[in-house]
Amino acid sequence: MELLKKRILEDGVVLNGNILKVDSFLNHQMDVALFNEFGKEFKRRFSDTKVTKILTIEASGIGIATIVAQHFDNVPVVFAKKMDDSKLGNNVYQSYVHSFTKNKDYFVRVSKDFINEGDQILIIDDFLANGCAAKGLIDIVRQANANPIGVGIVIEKGFQPGREVIESLDVKVESLAIIDRFDNNQVYFK
Amino acid sequence: MELLKKRILEDGVVLNGNILKVDSFLNHQMDVALFNEFGKEFKRRFSDTKVTKILTIEASGIGIATIVAQHFDNVPVVFAKKMDDSKLGNNVYQSYVHSFTKNKDYFVRVSKDFINEGDQILIIDDFLANGCAAKGLIDIVRQANANPIGVGIVIEKGFQPGREVIESLDVKVESLAIIDRFDNNQVYFK
Repeated sequence: MELLKKRILEDGVVLNGNILKVDSFLNHQMDVALFNEFGKEFKRRFSDTKVTKILTIEASGIGIATIVAQHFDNVPVVFAKKMDDSKLGNNVYQSYVHSFTKNKDYFVRVSKDFINEGDQILIIDDFLANGCAAKGLIDIVRQANANPIGVGIVIEKGFQPGREVIESLDVKVESLAIIDRFDNNQVYFK
Repeated sequence: MELLKKRILEDGVVLNGNILKVDSFLNHQMDVALFNEFGKEFKRRFSDTKVTKILTIEASGIGIATIVAQHFDNVPVVFAKKMDDSKLGNNVYQSYVHSFTKNKDYFVRVSKDFINEGDQILIIDDFLANGCAAKGLIDIVRQANANPIGVGIVIEKGFQPGREVIESLDVKVESLAIIDRFDNNQVYFK
């Protein structure tokens, strides 16, 4: 998606040679008009499959997923929780996820009330790197006997194994921008 | 807002006599069409003041705020972070907040890059109870020499002091539904 690549080149900052900071438009300050362009593009790429629900993960997936849902007939959006939430109780699907960014393990949890057997679930997230979060979400969808119809990612780090991990689970991945490499603090796309 | 009150009566669940669970449409599963109705209503209630940015707090404020921003000319949405984020660095405004729900204290943080002097900031959140989070956000806005033009809340617990706290800071509060009391696990509005 050219508009997004242009924006990454203009406003993204590469830290320490391998971290891409895009918090001016994606995951701290959010550009809602741009998110609507993501929505149009995801709709185009997943137009062949019925979507009954969008699943994302707190926190930075939430804004993107709610805007994207408008392009899928306002289907409900569910966000998986990383933190303990006493209100969730024991009525949850959960999966154990490793975060390489934070170098720790955590549970992602979704109430059993909100993913139903037969649901056609599109998973949306801001970044794909090692694929751990997406893998956890796919696991949760399958625990519910629902169908993960695809994973829609805004920015994929193409030099990390996330895509391979998801595709090995037989789930389609669509990323709006795929980074080939960082070189001298510059971003190069595939 | 009658549509919201009706929805709370239909789908809200009162736990332990004083906790309102609305996670089927507000803060775990999200009803995007309903959020757009919130946007229209907030726009009506804050139509007298220019808004240049919307500020919210992770996680459950984010979905509401992004949808609401569409009704304010797609102004940027910034979400304050509750968790440590190494990418934020030291370039932050922060405020110390007490959570009665979780009975702990935490910092809320916003990068200094995303609130500017003179910004006209509308604060959006899902719940208002004791007003601690909103107070922290107002503090951050004022640290940046920006102007908190108001606080827009989806559900206010009218029997708790949040409104008083915010109004004592000279900031306008608008809530779409104000709960007067819980009685026998039933919700009564003001």
